[in-house]
Amino acid sequence: MSTRSKIIYTFTDEAPALATYSLLPIVEAFAAAADIAVETRDISLAGRILASFADELGDKKVDDDLAKLAELTIQPDANIIKLPNISASVPQLKAAIAELQALGYSIPNFPEDPQTDADKEIRARYGKVLGSAVNPVLREGNSDRRAPAAVKAFARKHPHSMGKWSKASQSHADYMRGGDFFSSEQSVTMDKAGDVRIEFVSKDGKVEVKKQLALQEGEVLDGMFMSCNKLRAFFEDTLQDCKETGVMWSLHVKATMMKISHPIVFGHAVSVYYKDVFDKYGELFKELGVNPNNGISSVYDKIKSLPDSQQEEILHDIHACYAERPEMAMVDSVKGITNLHIPSDVIVDASMPAMIRNSGQMWGKDGKQKDTKAVMPESTYARIYQEMINFCKTNGAFDPTTMGSVPNVGLMAQKAEEYGSHDKTFEMQADGTMRVVLADGTVLMQHEVEKGDIWRACQTKDAPIRDWVKLAVTRARQSDTPAIFWLDPERAHDRELQKKVETYLQEHDLTGLDIRMMGYNEAIRVSMERLIRGQDTISVTGNVLRDYLTDLFPIMELGTSAKMLSIVPLMAGGGMYETGAGGSAPKHVQQLIEENHLRWDSLGEFLALAVSLEETGIKTDNLKAKLLGKALDAATGKLLDNNKSPSRRTGELDNRGSHFYLALYWAQELAAQTEDLELQAQFAPLAKQLSDNEEAIVSELAAVQGKPVEIGGYYRSNPELTSKVMRPSATFNAALAALA
Amino acid sequence: MSTRSKIIYTFTDEAPALATYSLLPIVEAFAAAADIAVETRDISLAGRILASFADELGDKKVDDDLAKLAELTIQPDANIIKLPNISASVPQLKAAIAELQALGYSIPNFPEDPQTDADKEIRARYGKVLGSAVNPVLREGNSDRRAPAAVKAFARKHPHSMGKWSKASQSHADYMRGGDFFSSEQSVTMDKAGDVRIEFVSKDGKVEVKKQLALQEGEVLDGMFMSCNKLRAFFEDTLQDCKETGVMWSLHVKATMMKISHPIVFGHAVSVYYKDVFDKYGELFKELGVNPNNGISSVYDKIKSLPDSQQEEILHDIHACYAERPEMAMVDSVKGITNLHIPSDVIVDASMPAMIRNSGQMWGKDGKQKDTKAVMPESTYARIYQEMINFCKTNGAFDPTTMGSVPNVGLMAQKAEEYGSHDKTFEMQADGTMRVVLADGTVLMQHEVEKGDIWRACQTKDAPIRDWVKLAVTRARQSDTPAIFWLDPERAHDRELQKKVETYLQEHDLTGLDIRMMGYNEAIRVSMERLIRGQDTISVTGNVLRDYLTDLFPIMELGTSAKMLSIVPLMAGGGMYETGAGGSAPKHVQQLIEENHLRWDSLGEFLALAVSLEETGIKTDNLKAKLLGKALDAATGKLLDNNKSPSRRTGELDNRGSHFYLALYWAQELAAQTEDLELQAQFAPLAKQLSDNEEAIVSELAAVQGKPVEIGGYYRSNPELTSKVMRPSATFNAALAALA
Repeated sequence: MSTRSKIIYTFTDEAPALATYSLLPIVEAFAAAADIAVETRDISLAGRILASFADELGDKKVDDDLAKLAELTIQPDANIIKLPNISASVPQLKAAIAELQALGYSIPNFPEDPQTDADKEIRARYGKVLGSAVNPVLREGNSDRRAPAAVKAFARKHPHSMGKWSKASQSHADYMRGGDFFSSEQSVTMDKAGDVRIEFVSKDGKVEVKKQLALQEGEVLDGMFMSCNKLRAFFEDTLQDCKETGVMWSLHVKATMMKISHPIVFGHAVSVYYKDVFDKYGELFKELGVNPNNGISSVYDKIKSLPDSQQEEILHDIHACYAERPEMAMVDSVKGITNLHIPSDVIVDASMPAMIRNSGQMWGKDGKQKDTKAVMPESTYARIYQEMINFCKTNGAFDPTTMGSVPNVGLMAQKAEEYGSHDKTFEMQADGTMRVVLADGTVLMQHEVEKGDIWRACQTKDAPIRDWVKLAVTRARQSDTPAIFWLDPERAHDRELQKKVETYLQEHDLTGLDIRMMGYNEAIRVSMERLIRGQDTISVTGNVLRDYLTDLFPIMELGTSAKMLSIVPLMAGGGMYETGAGGSAPKHVQQLIEENHLRWDSLGEFLALAVSLEETGIKTDNLKAKLLGKALDAATGKLLDNNKSPSRRTGELDNRGSHFYLALYWAQELAAQTEDLELQAQFAPLAKQLSDNEEAIVSELAAVQGKPVEIGGYYRSNPELTSKVMRPSATFNAALAALA
Repeated sequence: MSTRSKIIYTFTDEAPALATYSLLPIVEAFAAAADIAVETRDISLAGRILASFADELGDKKVDDDLAKLAELTIQPDANIIKLPNISASVPQLKAAIAELQALGYSIPNFPEDPQTDADKEIRARYGKVLGSAVNPVLREGNSDRRAPAAVKAFARKHPHSMGKWSKASQSHADYMRGGDFFSSEQSVTMDKAGDVRIEFVSKDGKVEVKKQLALQEGEVLDGMFMSCNKLRAFFEDTLQDCKETGVMWSLHVKATMMKISHPIVFGHAVSVYYKDVFDKYGELFKELGVNPNNGISSVYDKIKSLPDSQQEEILHDIHACYAERPEMAMVDSVKGITNLHIPSDVIVDASMPAMIRNSGQMWGKDGKQKDTKAVMPESTYARIYQEMINFCKTNGAFDPTTMGSVPNVGLMAQKAEEYGSHDKTFEMQADGTMRVVLADGTVLMQHEVEKGDIWRACQTKDAPIRDWVKLAVTRARQSDTPAIFWLDPERAHDRELQKKVETYLQEHDLTGLDIRMMGYNEAIRVSMERLIRGQDTISVTGNVLRDYLTDLFPIMELGTSAKMLSIVPLMAGGGMYETGAGGSAPKHVQQLIEENHLRWDSLGEFLALAVSLEETGIKTDNLKAKLLGKALDAATGKLLDNNKSPSRRTGELDNRGSHFYLALYWAQELAAQTEDLELQAQFAPLAKQLSDNEEAIVSELAAVQGKPVEIGGYYRSNPELTSKVMRPSATFNAALAALA
């Protein structure tokens, strides 16, 4: 058994975990035909909690599967299906602890306010379980995201709605023309490893070290800042412009991800828009602890402590701002939630594609769609949205039935680029100089800054870049598709990367490949021109554009980014296949428990498994594995085409029924192929049996629905109970069992 | 004298001819210093009339200078300064004949309706003098147009006004997405010389030969058509769209130049916009001979024969259209002249740059600027305007003080491309097939057409293309500027040209040159991106884009296209330097005769002369000639800078005063240079003398103004009288005479 190929299927939480009880037996049975073992690793929240206290569990001790998985990611034969897991908040963590304790696991309580050393140690252990604790550990590779053929074919046949574009649309993207990060960016590549310090030098010469970094040889380090004064003047200009033109005003940032810089930017938008209020109540707000970075809702929260009459006066003045200022886009016009209410509501990579898909319009306070100025202060990436808006004005909305595709190869490994810059982002407390200095005193870069400016540094290691180039070439070759490196010759950082890309491209056979480098505007334009002619173009981008484009194009092409295939080819040679951009869906669990209907769609798992099988086949020269992958892809296409995805409504086909149809179609595909007759012979009977019993199985699956079920836990449900609930068709189970 | 270099200065008509009396003596005196003779050739209307009847003039016989010039254009040493001349209408011709007869020339009257053979022969001789009779004879080369350094510097220092662009502008260009010439274009290159016939095959198989052509080896022939039904549906759509969006409607064609196809297109616009009227009065209009191709003014003209009450009813119905249809852009809102009044009023290559320079707006019937839909049915070239509009929305208006330049190298020789297609353009009288057939019966191309469709063929000979490629390489080399061939890979014609360009580029040393080929959208975008960064890019284009771009970019850069340097490097090796895009200015003559003030600006002549001298210097290795050219350029710059161009107002500096300052600055530049000490010694005294006497000369020139003068004729003024009028400063004349 030890020489068999292995696919590691992650056992996670909530809906994806429930679905695993139904899907995994099918996968195991099919994979066995190609001599592939499917093993699970428990990286659920419960599993990770238990692993953190393994030493205290006695005979209930569990393995640290996440640590093992992390080790696996740097092995060349890793083949991991990564399902979505819980990024636990404190309340979730506490609930999970209680559930585990009730199951007899002797784990400690979560110490809210640890005082003793013992408590502090417990708190530290739990700390490692909190929040986004899985992805950073596992993402030892760059990103390869694409629309699978089956999904693309489905979208072409059953297109999602696309709002018509008017040539006379007034919508546009607006961004700073100076004073932003783009205009101040400096970039250096380390010719050898070395320590640097980021320091602030005040006007009187005092030096304050803000951060020390140990940089690797070949690592790229950038420094840049955004001018607070210019940012505020820009916001004021955009507001005046909207006031004049009657176009609605809207702000698009990414405060969740760019978690240091963007809340500050957002805060300036709030205090400029509501300038009269912040001017009038400046002192009072300071006393109350109002923080505009938390949105205008911060004012509503903090003034609650004031007497009614004073509250009313402030609310009156806030309303007066609306009369003075242009109309603002709403997040929820029914509830009166504006764009500036809280910073996490409008997230640029989701909100801009939504606006573009919606005729370039957002919703006003009257609930009506309106032409919009999309304000995105930082110009680096904002320009691509203006480019797409111009394109839609000129050529009309994209047509999902005919358009090509823009898959992405994204630089992501080892926290490359801006997304790793949070701990190197600083809001200036005084005028002075920010500089980056080598240990020997050499100044690598420096900026004159003013109080309020946002300065940040950004690291990109060499190995991920080299791997990213390789991945781009590989994808271009495998998919026979032109690839464009989005590198802006006017950006210091991109010029450094361009040199590396040119170097590393020479390590590959580029014969017959069409690989180009372009600035962002040109890159997106060329991609769009090809798109409307039905042609595909790989976007090879940095980390931020990876994030933006893997929403932007999928939303145009497929109506959602959740159906994308998301592969992380690990730098060590293995592969990780991420599924389900939709989170772990707690509401789905509730529906199952109350009505025995699971509406979780395993489409992401089907897609990931097909690639995983194909990869295994290629790497181990296993024809059966390749054919299994190919057949699974075809089966998924058929499933989409025949509308056998789970319904949201209890009583109709759910997750389990969808799995049945997948098994049926998968078996039929294998029975129909003739490349491997053994495989054909093995699956023909199953195909016949499932087909003959389709009606019986579907009714067995339907019969159980509508009543509550017991699965013995939420964070760690009982395996036997859950399996019974998730596999209710005796006919189907028997047929599967006969295969082995 | 016979080995001296020669510059041929054309003697033409009206204002440019008058100015020649003042300028030429200066030029002759200066050129003599480099041993260059300046000779004139009389290609004036009067001169051409006399040459046509040379055999009947006895001792008053004149040479046929135009024929001689035409011969010269195919000589390698041709160096011709071509001033604007009269393209005579019949009334102008008759007036000139009468004037010449009064001067004693025994030429016959113009036979309006010739019956006898003798009269027919006379009519035929006069026919060759009518209309645009000079340019087609002389343009034996492609086109090289650029903004001279002095003019560019002037525009940077004294920028013309540019309307601000709003990001929320609703203006745009709209064009057909199918059914136009672009979508149906077919193109073949003749592998050997051959005769072809263009023929129409009716539904019942009857063949009608429309045209026979003898094609050369390597000649490119295109065939294409525009669907009448799709064109009319497109017009209706644009009108509905404007009605919905409130954007003003405007039509942009070029009925003057595309003189067969565009009046038909214009006519459809008229009969669609005023559909209700044309539907209601269809029969009546047919009887009256109303032709929508002549504009709605045709209705106004033709209904004059009707009783008042019927006229009123029709006028009422026309006005009812305005209520039903969207607002239309006005040519003259004061006089109530709309865009659809007469076909020659709005000419795309002038009207679109004017609109773009004017914030993307045109004038409505209330005389106010408004956002506009610029309707240009044919998509081939219309797309570049949409591209520029999008660019201005994104980046704001161009800034003349910082922007670079887009000079043009245009394919023009031997009537290349569409501009030679008039005699091969046909409006279909029935449904059927249009085809182009070789003498041996091979069908080169064919189109299924419907009644009303416009079919046309277009020729481009090989030699001009080869020369055009050479000119592009030469200009790229000489100006050290990147050059872009605007060739659209989606256009059949351009794909044929692209093959030729690739072939002919191999004939040149391209080392160190940046020569690219791009589709129109990409080409204009790249050029504009460079433009706003202060960089120059040569546009290497076909004939129509030559025409469009040499207005579009100059109007952005300089505020006018009249200040461009327009060179025709003759294919045989010589050079022709065209001046003055402004025509021959009859109103200027009137002002001179009545008030002795000539406001003609000889800037075009200065610029052309400088290049002509420089070219002579290079070709004959004559340093003095080169220095004369360089100094003239510098003097022209100084003249612009010091605002010594002619004023429009009598009493202020006029054409003659401007010439004086040119002579002063030119002499000063030559006196200041040290590359040729002989030249320096020769001009230093003149510079001093002119400078010392500046006040005296200027007041002598001013003193004569304000009174009528007599020059003894309009089409052939008396040389002695005219010279006296045009050289009124004794001090200046004496100084010049001393130079020789």
